[in-house]
Parts: sequence; C-alpha cells; structure tokens
Amino acid sequence: MSIWLQPEPLNWWHSVDDAIQEDVGSGDLSGGCIDPELMCSYYIEAQGEGTVCGLGIAEYLLSPYSSDPEGTKIELHFEDGDRIVRGDILVSGRTYARRALLAERTILNFMMLLSGVATTTRRYVDQVEGTSVRIVDTRKTIPGLRGLQKYAVRCGGGHSHRMGLFDGVMIKDNHIRACGGIRQAVEKVKEYAPHTVRIEVECTTLEEVEEAINAGADIVMLDNMDPFMMREAVKEYRGKCIFEASGGISLDTVKGVAQTGVDIISIGALTHSAPSLPMHMEFE
Amino acid sequence: MSIWLQPEPLNWWHSVDDAIQEDVGSGDLSGGCIDPELMCSYYIEAQGEGTVCGLGIAEYLLSPYSSDPEGTKIELHFEDGDRIVRGDILVSGRTYARRALLAERTILNFMMLLSGVATTTRRYVDQVEGTSVRIVDTRKTIPGLRGLQKYAVRCGGGHSHRMGLFDGVMIKDNHIRACGGIRQAVEKVKEYAPHTVRIEVECTTLEEVEEAINAGADIVMLDNMDPFMMREAVKEYRGKCIFEASGGISLDTVKGVAQTGVDIISIGALTHSAPSLPMHMEFE
Amino acid sequence: MSIWLQPEPLNWWHSVDDAIQEDVGSGDLSGGCIDPELMCSYYIEAQGEGTVCGLGIAEYLLSPYSSDPEGTKIELHFEDGDRIVRGDILVSGRTYARRALLAERTILNFMMLLSGVATTTRRYVDQVEGTSVRIVDTRKTIPGLRGLQKYAVRCGGGHSHRMGLFDGVMIKDNHIRACGGIRQAVEKVKEYAPHTVRIEVECTTLEEVEEAINAGADIVMLDNMDPFMMREAVKEYRGKCIFEASGGISLDTVKGVAQTGVDIISIGALTHSAPSLPMHMEFE
Amino acid sequence: MSIWLQPEPLNWWHSVDDAIQEDVGSGDLSGGCIDPELMCSYYIEAQGEGTVCGLGIAEYLLSPYSSDPEGTKIELHFEDGDRIVRGDILVSGRTYARRALLAERTILNFMMLLSGVATTTRRYVDQVEGTSVRIVDTRKTIPGLRGLQKYAVRCGGGHSHRMGLFDGVMIKDNHIRACGGIRQAVEKVKEYAPHTVRIEVECTTLEEVEEAINAGADIVMLDNMDPFMMREAVKEYRGKCIFEASGGISLDTVKGVAQTGVDIISIGALTHSAPSLPMHMEFE
Amino acid sequence: MSIWLQPEPLNWWHSVDDAIQEDVGSGDLSGGCIDPELMCSYYIEAQGEGTVCGLGIAEYLLSPYSSDPEGTKIELHFEDGDRIVRGDILVSGRTYARRALLAERTILNFMMLLSGVATTTRRYVDQVEGTSVRIVDTRKTIPGLRGLQKYAVRCGGGHSHRMGLFDGVMIKDNHIRACGGIRQAVEKVKEYAPHTVRIEVECTTLEEVEEAINAGADIVMLDNMDPFMMREAVKEYRGKCIFEASGGISLDTVKGVAQTGVDIISIGALTHSAPSLPMHMEFE
Amino acid sequence: MSIWLQPEPLNWWHSVDDAIQEDVGSGDLSGGCIDPELMCSYYIEAQGEGTVCGLGIAEYLLSPYSSDPEGTKIELHFEDGDRIVRGDILVSGRTYARRALLAERTILNFMMLLSGVATTTRRYVDQVEGTSVRIVDTRKTIPGLRGLQKYAVRCGGGHSHRMGLFDGVMIKDNHIRACGGIRQAVEKVKEYAPHTVRIEVECTTLEEVEEAINAGADIVMLDNMDPFMMREAVKEYRGKCIFEASGGISLDTVKGVAQTGVDIISIGALTHSAPSLPMHMEFE
Repeated sequence: MSIWLQPEPLNWWHSVDDAIQEDVGSGDLSGGCIDPELMCSYYIEAQGEGTVCGLGIAEYLLSPYSSDPEGTKIELHFEDGDRIVRGDILVSGRTYARRALLAERTILNFMMLLSGVATTTRRYVDQVEGTSVRIVDTRKTIPGLRGLQKYAVRCGGGHSHRMGLFDGVMIKDNHIRACGGIRQAVEKVKEYAPHTVRIEVECTTLEEVEEAINAGADIVMLDNMDPFMMREAVKEYRGKCIFEASGGISLDTVKGVAQTGVDIISIGALTHSAPSLPMHMEFE
Repeated sequence: MSIWLQPEPLNWWHSVDDAIQEDVGSGDLSGGCIDPELMCSYYIEAQGEGTVCGLGIAEYLLSPYSSDPEGTKIELHFEDGDRIVRGDILVSGRTYARRALLAERTILNFMMLLSGVATTTRRYVDQVEGTSVRIVDTRKTIPGLRGLQKYAVRCGGGHSHRMGLFDGVMIKDNHIRACGGIRQAVEKVKEYAPHTVRIEVECTTLEEVEEAINAGADIVMLDNMDPFMMREAVKEYRGKCIFEASGGISLDTVKGVAQTGVDIISIGALTHSAPSLPMHMEFE
Repeated sequence: MSIWLQPEPLNWWHSVDDAIQEDVGSGDLSGGCIDPELMCSYYIEAQGEGTVCGLGIAEYLLSPYSSDPEGTKIELHFEDGDRIVRGDILVSGRTYARRALLAERTILNFMMLLSGVATTTRRYVDQVEGTSVRIVDTRKTIPGLRGLQKYAVRCGGGHSHRMGLFDGVMIKDNHIRACGGIRQAVEKVKEYAPHTVRIEVECTTLEEVEEAINAGADIVMLDNMDPFMMREAVKEYRGKCIFEASGGISLDTVKGVAQTGVDIISIGALTHSAPSLPMHMEFE
Repeated sequence: MSIWLQPEPLNWWHSVDDAIQEDVGSGDLSGGCIDPELMCSYYIEAQGEGTVCGLGIAEYLLSPYSSDPEGTKIELHFEDGDRIVRGDILVSGRTYARRALLAERTILNFMMLLSGVATTTRRYVDQVEGTSVRIVDTRKTIPGLRGLQKYAVRCGGGHSHRMGLFDGVMIKDNHIRACGGIRQAVEKVKEYAPHTVRIEVECTTLEEVEEAINAGADIVMLDNMDPFMMREAVKEYRGKCIFEASGGISLDTVKGVAQTGVDIISIGALTHSAPSLPMHMEFE
Repeated sequence: MSIWLQPEPLNWWHSVDDAIQEDVGSGDLSGGCIDPELMCSYYIEAQGEGTVCGLGIAEYLLSPYSSDPEGTKIELHFEDGDRIVRGDILVSGRTYARRALLAERTILNFMMLLSGVATTTRRYVDQVEGTSVRIVDTRKTIPGLRGLQKYAVRCGGGHSHRMGLFDGVMIKDNHIRACGGIRQAVEKVKEYAPHTVRIEVECTTLEEVEEAINAGADIVMLDNMDPFMMREAVKEYRGKCIFEASGGISLDTVKGVAQTGVDIISIGALTHSAPSLPMHMEFE
Repeated sequence: MSIWLQPEPLNWWHSVDDAIQEDVGSGDLSGGCIDPELMCSYYIEAQGEGTVCGLGIAEYLLSPYSSDPEGTKIELHFEDGDRIVRGDILVSGRTYARRALLAERTILNFMMLLSGVATTTRRYVDQVEGTSVRIVDTRKTIPGLRGLQKYAVRCGGGHSHRMGLFDGVMIKDNHIRACGGIRQAVEKVKEYAPHTVRIEVECTTLEEVEEAINAGADIVMLDNMDPFMMREAVKEYRGKCIFEASGGISLDTVKGVAQTGVDIISIGALTHSAPSLPMHMEFE
C-alpha cells in the first residue's frame, strides 16, 4: 500500500470491494471476449490540475500477487497529497488485460472523486497560508465514503473535524432548547460523556459565546457570524476555548475569516460538492 | 414509501442503514442530553432551486412505527422528480427529538446529493426538449451509490444506460485490439453473451461505424466525434442500429449534438460532478 | 484456477465457503482423531458418463498454499466441459488428511450437481447438432446457485438466458393484462428500461406474435406452441425478431422444435431436475 | 408461518431473501410496467402428485403486512407433509401484482425443489411401511440448502441423520487407517468428543462389525453390504448398537434391506437427485 | 425497550441475535417436544445481591409482537442501574413455551454478565462516595461486548473512558520512545488528530508529568504511582490538566487514591474479571 | 497456527477480526504518531500462574506475511494447555511498531480471558485426578465466545458438553411438564431427533432417575442432588446410562462428587466467572 496520511481510514478496501461487486454484478459480459492469458501495459493520466488522492486504491486492485508471472507489476509515480498537472502519469503497470479492464472504472471513480476533494481542500488551505488556522471538514459527506473523504481532506492539507456523532460532542440550538439552556446542556453532557472528547457549543451571538465558555465548553462554534463579530468573540475570550468558524464560508471569504483569529474553519463544500478531478486510463 | 420511478433501486435502505452506522458509530454523544421522551416537530426546507429526489429516505428514517404514540407522523409535500424552489417545505413531521437529530445529517446528505443529480439531469433534459433524444447516465458514479444515483437521473427526466458490466455489452478499443478487430470481438461476444442484452461498439471514425454495423452491433457509440461526423454517421446508417453520442458533451453543446439525430446522449457529469442541492432541517 | 467459460460466475467461492460452514458448523468431530500433520494422496473418480463441471471448486478447496510443504499438490486431469466416462480420474493430489476429509463432501456435492447440469445440457445440445439453434437455460434454478448452474449449462454447450429480472425484459400474460395489451406493455417498458437490454414478449397465438412484433418486441417467445405453429410464426416474421421456443420441450421433442427454425430453445429441466453425476473421492 | 415439523431449520428465511436478491439483482425491469397500486388474486396449483413442502416460503414472501390494505390476504390450503394430487390448489391469496410477480419464480423454485424431496422420501417410506426401520437422509445435499432439504425429508416421513460434521461422529475407512485400527480411532474420538453425540463406524465386513462393537461404537454402518450379510450382522449383535444400512439402496431394494432388521436406512438420492414436483402460479 | 443510560450502545441487538444463533445453531433439538401453541408464565429471579443491568435484552427477546395473541406480555420490575437483592423478581411475563426456553440461556448469559459488571462498578463507586472522582473503565473488555460492558459500567455509577483507539488519544511509553520524547509525540499527534478529542499522556514520574503538561497534554495518566506521588502531581499542576490514576487499584486502595485529588480512576477489573451475578428463570 | 486441541473452534478468527474492528473503529488516533516503517521487538509475559490458552491469536494477529521484510518474525514459547508461571515469556517476536501497538490490547484481552478459563478448569481437573470422571463445561458462556471458551476448557484438561441446542438433547423439568411426563417427553424427542445425538434427562429424585432410564434416556443429569443420593443413583443403575452431576459444585466439593461414581461433572463457573489470567506485552 502507498503511504496514507494518518490515521488510515479503517477497512477502506471494503468500499472498494463493494464497488467492484456493484459494477461487475453477475459477470463482466464484455471482458469475456479477451483471452484470459493476454497481458497489457497501462497507465493512469491526469486530465486536470490539482492534488492527487487514492493511489492506494489502484495499487490495491492491480497489485501483483506472489503467484503472478514476473511480468506483473505496478508503479505509483506520486504519493497521495502531491500536486499534479494535466498530463502527469500517476500510475503505470502491467497485468492481465481482463483484470485491468474490469478494475478500470472503479479505480477512476474513486481516484477522481478523492482527488477532487483533495484539490478543493488545497485551494482553501492555500488561501489561508501564513495564518495558523486549520481548514477542517464536516459531516456533510457522501454516505458510505466518509472515512475516505476525510482522508482526502487531510491529503489536501486540511484537518479532520469529528468523524461522526461518537468522537466529539456538538451541542446545537436544538439540544440547548431541549435542555433549557446552554449551561444545562453542557452539564448534562458532562455527566455521561467520556472525558476524552471535547464539548463544542454552537453559538450565534456573543452572549451565547459567553454563556458557553462559562458553562465549560471546550470549543465554541461561531455559527454564521460575520467576521466582525467573530473578531470580537476571539478578542474577548482568547485562550478560554478553541474557536471554530462555520457557515457559508467560500474561497472568496475564507481568508477574511482566518484573519479574525479563529482556530478552525469548517467547510461542508470540501466533501459535498467538490467537482471530481478528471483522469483516464490508457492501455497498450 | 413514496412512489419510486421504476425500477426501484434494490435494497437502497441498506445504504441508508450503513450511513447511519457510519455516523453514529459507538453512540450519539450529543443526543444523550435530550430527554428520550421529548418529541419535536420538524421540517426540511429547500435552500435552492431544482428537482427533488430522495424523499423516501426521509420517510424511511422517520416513519411512524405502529407502536409509536399517535403524535408521530410524517408528510411528504412533493414527489421525487418534482421541481422545487428555494423555501419549499419538502417534508414535515413530528417524532422523538433524539431520533430526528440522529437522522438529520444522514437524510440531508442523501437528499442533497440525489437532488443535485436530478437537478443537473433536468438541465440537460430541458436543453434537448422537443427532440426525441434520451439523456442517459454512465458508469462514472459514486462508489456504492450507483443504483440511487441512476434513480435520481430518471427522476430528473433522464434514462439509464447499463447498470454495470453485467446488463449490457460495451466493446471498447481495448477489446477490439485484444480480439484483432471489431468483427472478431463482436463474434466472440455473441458466442457467450445472453441474447437478452445488446452489443454496443465504441467507434471514433466512420469506417469503424461501418465495420461495427456490418459485424452486427446493436448500438454504436460515436465517441468524441464532432457533430458533423455524427450527423454523417446517422444519415448513412439510420435504422441499422441505435446511435449513442458520448464524450465531453456539456450543457452548451448538448442541443447541437441532439440535432445530429442520435438516439442517446450519455453524460458522465450527471453523476460524478453534480453539485448538491442545498437543504436544511429545522426543529420546533 | 481452472479455465472458466466466460463470464465467470461472480464470487462463486462465497457459495463454497458457505457450504463448508454449513457442513462443519461448530467443528469436525470425526476429523479430530487424525494426526494434524498426516498427509494423504487422493483422487476423484467419475462413477458415470457425462460432461464434467466444477473442477475449479476442488482446486479452490484443496489448492496448495505458498506456505505448504512441498508435498502438497493438486492436478486437474480435465477441463470443465470435457466429456468423461466411468472410471476417469478427474482430480488427483496430495494434502493434509484432515483437510481433504473435511472438504470431501462439499467438493463432491458441488461437482456432482454441476456435472449433472452440464451432462443434461450436453444431451439436449447433441440432439440439435447441425442446426443453428441455441439451447438456453431459464430462471428455474436452485436458489443460491443460479450463477454456477448457468455456468454449468455453458460448459454443457448451452447458452444463458437472462441471469435474472435485471438483465432482460420478459413481458408475460400478466404484464400484458395489467397494461391493457401487448403494445401498451412494450411502450411502457421502453419508457424506462435501459436501451442495452432487449424486450421479449411471451406469445401463445400467431396474432399475439404479430402484435408483439408490431409493438417493437426484440424477442418473441413461442410459448407452448406446437411445432407446426412455431414454423408458421418463423416463416411469417423471419428477420423481424429473435424467436424463442419454450414450454415442455423434452429430449424426444427438442430436435423437432429445432427444425422449425427458431433461434433459441429454453429448457427449465436443465437446472431444476438434472440428476447428479455420481463421483467419489478415494484416499491412499 | 405454517406449522413446521421440528426442529425448524434455523433462519431459513435468509436463504429466501438471498434467492430474491439473486433474482432481482439491480431491479425488476419487467415489473416496472405494472401500476404499483394494482392488486391481483393468485393461486399456486400442483401439476403433479406427491407430498407438498415449503408452503411457509410462499407465506413468508406474500404475507400481508399490518399496513397493507384489507384486501391483502393469503391462505394455505395444505400443511407441509400433506399428500397432494395434480390440480390441487396449494396456496391462494391477493396482493399487489408487482409483488406477486417478483416473488413468483423464487416461491416456485423453492416449493418445487422441497416438494420433490418430500415426495421422493415418501416413496421410500411407503415401501418400508409396517417395519420399524427409519429412512434417513445423508450429507449429500445441495450446497446452501441442507437445513431445508432435511426438513423436507422429515415432511416426507423420513428422519434426519446428523446435520453435518458437528453433531455426530462418523468414523470411515480413512479415519481408521489414519489411526491404525477401529479400536484406536474410537478411543481417540472418545477422548475429545462431547458425550452427547454418538459414535458411528463404517464397516464392510462382519469382522469389522465385531471390532467396532467391541471398541464401543454406538452405531454401526453396514456399508454396501448385501442383505444376507446385513441380516447376519443384525442377528449376531442385536441390542449392542444401532444398525444403519447404507450404499446404493433403491426403491426396488429398500424393502428387502428393511427386512434384514436394520434400524436405519440412509439414502443419498433423497437430497441429491430428487426430481422437482411441478407447480405453477396463476394470476387473475 | 427499557430506558438505557446514554449513549445507548449502538446495535447491541446484533450481539443478542448472534448469541441466539450461536446457541441454536441448526435447531433446538429439545424444544421440538413442546406443543408450539403452548404458552407459559415465567419470571427471572435474582440469586444474589448487586446492581442489575441488561433488562432490555430480556425485553428484546421476549417482547410481545403486535400479531401475538393477547396473552403475550412482559413486565420489567426494575430499571438498569437499580440495586437488587436475592429473591427479587426482575422480569415476569407470559409467552410461548418454546420461545421462552429457546431464549432463556441467552438472556441469562447476558444479564448475569452485565449485572456482574454493574455490581462490581457500584462497589468501587460506593468506596469513593463523597469525593468528586470518577471511576472509569478501560479497553480491557471482553472481545465483542465492549459497548455493552461500558454501558454496564455506567449503570453501576461509573463513567466511560474512550471507547477505543478512535475517540481519544493515549500516548504511552512506546509512542514516546518511537517519537523521541513526550513533546515530539504530542506535537505529532496534534498535527493530524481531530481537535474534538483530548490527548492523554502516560507518565510514571513527576518529571514526565511536567513534560507532558508543558507539551500541551490535556490529560495526564499517573501510571502505577503511589498515592504520595500522585498527591504531589495534583498539587503541583492542579488546573492544568485532567489527572487520571491507573494501575493495580483495588477496592481496598481506591479510596486512598481518590483522596489524592485525581479526577479519574480507571480500573480494568470492572470489565475483565467481574464475577457474574447469579440469576435464574422459572416457568409455570 | 499453533496446535489446537480438536475440534478447532470454527472460524475463530472472525471473533478476532471483529474485536480489532471494535477497538480501532474509525482509526487508531495514537498510533499515527509512529513512523510506519519503524520496527520493534516485543514479548508477552505472564503475570500470574496457570494454564495458557490463545497463543494462536497472537500468532494470527502478528504473523509475518510473505511480503514482510526478513526482520519480521514471531515465536510461540508454549503450546495451548501448558502450565505457566509468573514471568514466563509466552510469545516473542518482531514486527512494525504500529501494527504491534494496534493489536496489543486485543491479543491480551483474548489471551487473558481464555487462559483464565483454562486455568480455572485445570484446578477442577486436578481436584479429581485419579478418578475417571470428566469435568465438562455448560452453555453458561460469554455471548459470542462459546467456541473459544469451550476450547479453553479442553486446554485446561476438561471436556465439552454439547455446544448448543443443536448437538444434544436435554429434557428439563419444563419440557417434562409440557409433555406430561418423562416418558412422553423422551418418546416425542425420539420421533424427530437424529439418532446421532444422545438424550439427557434432568432428574432431581431417584424416582425420576428410574423413570428416565426406563423411558430410554441415554444420559441422566443428577441435578442439585447431594452426594449421598448421587451415590445411590449410580449404584442402582450403573451401566444403564451416563451419569452427569450438576448444580452448585465448587472446588471444595468437586472431589466428593467425583467419588460418587458419576461419569461427568458439569460446572458453569468454568466459563461464566473465571477470573482472567494477567499478562502484559512489552516492547523494545
């Protein structure tokens, strides 16, 4: 396997196996016309510019087995997270023609999607270069691919927010209303939540920020605030919590938000709407 | 369940169950602060304009059980495939607050993605209105979500190409080269393929089109041809096969391609790069 | 793996693993008396005449691992689809005695069943030798073994009908009645079915055949017609569709049906009632 | 569910679910033409004479849900194990037309196969009527369907041999050779096998029978012996063990074997080669 | 379902289903002698004193279905976390005799184990009553039952440490050595770990404690320190991190450790060696 | 794999894989700080005295793959069932540091639990040394780990009772009452149970013992009888059945029970309350 930025998404190969099954179903009707012994050379070429991600999936599906004849091989010419330009050869190798054709679409579907996420993330990260802010993802991910998409965000220079509902606490307006206030909600959570996870509270006003910090929130989300209010919040309570900016932040506005002094900027578009990075696979 | 455009994607609820598991993992740490008996009203509201898809997923995750108290209910205000505008209430209902908060993100992740696919498809379909051409999808889908994405394409007025390698034959340049020619490839496939599926041949020149038709191809893919050449092909061989145009066709060019007389236009961007349609879920 | 006639049934080894689990359950109580290091030679011998199928399953369950001592080996003396006679040694090898005894019953259960299907198919195929008709299977298969049984049919010289409800359309009397007529049913199907699959209509009279062809049916099933009526249908509409004869066709009548000029003869008995081909496994 | 002869095969509905999945795959292309709200009446009719088995599978797949409209119903007109004749209506009911058509083939595939097993078993059982001998099955079953096939044997008046390698000990010639003798093999097994299962030894001569009984075998299999030798064995050792006759016993010879005084007759053909009992499903 | 202390262990019923399968295997041979229509009353009685846990499992396995006759019912007489004494009736109800006997062993195996964990936890918690210290569990759990065991700890008045390797960071001596020091390890982790989880460092000396706090550790584990050293650490660095005491703490020593001022005491014996709480199920 | 006492628990590695998944979840957050290429030496050391069990699990999780560099290795210094003392090195080896740290807790959780069971069993077996009685386990096992726990019992010198409800018949008071008497219950079971499993009847008085033997019981359980009554039963009916003593037998009383002449003593505490045997894993 190629080098994965830690932590490696657990059991990512199950998603790949499922995708092959989804595509092949009851059999590859077209591949049957090819001599099963015929071998071919192949390469995967970038058709756009960006940050590559998912090379390990090509390696997983086309890796030489120990029982393969010597002619079988694969070479990864980049590592996940590398910047690439149109025309770059990302992977090349040699294997059975049937096997390569069967895996082609699945490899490209994964690599194009993940590289798209990494590329979009990189654009945001580049915008905030020079600041200490972190660009992080959200839970607005493609169902079934969260672990891989969050890995792609890390490959693009971003960081991970919580993976799901289980490794972090996020108290939103509805939790607050249901508990009767920020303080009550935070206290209730502290009763049962493991001490190993932090408690974040979603705030839309400076009053709420104050209330959250007094209640013992570890992280305060400045939700859909304008940069001016964010700056206020950060100035007032610096050092008392981690500040996360969230809500409708775009490539155009991200730099301004970063300059408010927040620690974290979370962006749903990294994973729900990143356009895929075009690639194709050629055979010889 | 709401009405699905046929055929319903088999076992789509497995993807939904998996997505809930992916999100909840070892437990919803935030939801624990809410009284398990507390109920709430909720609604899902469109934040953009387009074609809705995935209403059945909200219904699946928030459907009243027979053992629920009478207060539990859900109402779908649209059907999959309906056009919606910003501010439309898509779904409303009443259920346990914990349950609704736990399902919120998963429902939105599915509905935003699928509605994005339907919306993009509808744009292409609208462009070719008045012609008899079909806009169809490809195998360039998100791993694990092919059945649902292809359903979304149908909701957007598009049609389905083959679901995978198993329900149609596509002879590409590599198959042709491996078999020694178009005729040889088609003949080989006919030896073993079920008579219930059609054979498509990818062609890039008029000579190849002729060769494919003479070999008995049922469908000819005009691959990355310019509209002029497509028109030639259609004129010359009308009635002898189904013509599919493919390769780099955009919203700008799709109408011109449709006017060449082809039967089918396949577009990968419907499923690999459709931006999601924004929605949110509100609680009272 | 031995050479499979294409397309290889996907993930056939899952059925084999399940069968081992079904047999071994919580442990092989008898095998425990054998020294785990003891090795033995074995062979599988045909106890009847026919066409062999399933050799790959023996190979799968008894294949030498790279970590096995040198003494471990397996040899397949035939290929799937070969004709065999009583006394033929089909497979021979050497492995751990415990392993061979544990796998024995599962291997034989598969090979006897699949060879039975291939043998029965071959008898039908031999009857129609010299004609261009294809003997094909149906969906009347053993639950859970459809892919393997259809592979066995191909090994016996037959061909595959559609694999299931997903890779071909079959409009039966009930569909026709529900839609209000053949034309209406065909038109409805064309609205949503992928263009890659053909539409077949079940017909019992010449009037229905005409109606089906006019409606655009690609395949017409002549259902339980007598050979005289079949000949009429073929004569009248030759070249306008594929003709499939179906219904109660036996080894005695198949040749007569073939001579009517139909393209395809489908026979349920290939898969639902083929007697198994006897074999046994001997150890030394 | 209908009444099952005990013990009910565990989780038999998993096999049914898998069979539906195998058949429907990515969707029922034909069923899509039927109005999803259309309901129909149906019945399953026997097309041959025998013993019915598998009625619970029809009930499982077509059972009315509590949320169904009142018109939905199913009636089983027989119980598993009942004798039926051609023309008997086995099941009748009313449900959605799409649902019935989708389930039709799977229901019939199971019921025809299982009723075939029950029918064949009943023929053997009838042959030995008046004796106290038990007709039992073997492990020569269809992979994946052992529990259901053994249930069908019980429905036909037969009994079950061990379910697999885990609920009974069978010491065969290879175990004996590997251990150095019958006594050694039995002793080794007794060291580790649970005291709740009996030990059976396969014998081909009277000397072996004596040796097995002296070694403490609970059951002696008289393997491929002629009836004269069986009679000898039973006479000599009556009361010292259970006697099982096995090997090539047919409908013609089973009565003679029963008259030798053995307790058990095991017959592989009950499960590996029983012809299916024809049935069809009609709609109105 | 009964009331669960939050967060409910996800999909706990899968473990219960698996346990039923493990026990019933190919069928309940004993239960077959009971008339399937026979109903019985039953109750579960404590045979020892402690804290009950797992009532929801009895309810899950014996809950009345909507289609059950009116006679079917179940009553839980306690809630998870309640203290019970010998002779207390925990659950009582009425259902089919076969069903109750089939589920009996599985229910008791779960309830005795989980109540054992809750009871042991309660003993530790009672020892530290009056202090603000939390008794927490560890990852030394029974494979496959971690979620349920940690739930039982909460029922006993304890709290949860991280659920696994994914929802908290624990830097041990080996991580420190591999990274070249505490500071380097903490820094490396901060590069990639989500900001929602805390970083804990295992320390065995006061120097290490200082180093960890300076490096930015959120939690310091005082590993196998004597109470005197713990007190020193707490006094010196109060307010700069959370202090967790760990290593060989018993019922006899836990109070003394609590009095050192640490925030958290983790105890492996809660889950790896808690004796089960005896119960039995009686039928009438 | 190390040598397993037969029969090997089927598919035990699935439990191990599940335990790894349970622990690692969405990723090992701590392990990420270690250089993925870094290797380490490790050993597992006993911290108590007893009988070891589960060495194969360490081997399974840390076994060198053929593609590993030469430095990777593992050595098992004992075999399952060996007696060990505090300080014994059970396993040692060399592998990637990340891999070893990820597997550490799972390996120890299994080995400590299984060795605890073997150790407790060995204590009972030692108590009855010199008699021919067998110490056997029960169905009072940890859900999901029955096969492995019963294997551990065999490693400790004990034997297996039935694995579950499927490989032995146990007629308890409730079955007897439901059938109307011991004779009726035994007769009913004989009607349907395979002849390969024995029938055991639970008896609490000598009258019941007589009734059970007359009814044809193969095994009689002397349930919660005092040793005097057991001796009576054995004396009176020696040779007519297998005698199993059960109910509240402790290390103190087991020898006395053995001396009554019973064949089998079953003890639930072997599997439901065996304290784990402490071990730890060290790295260099």
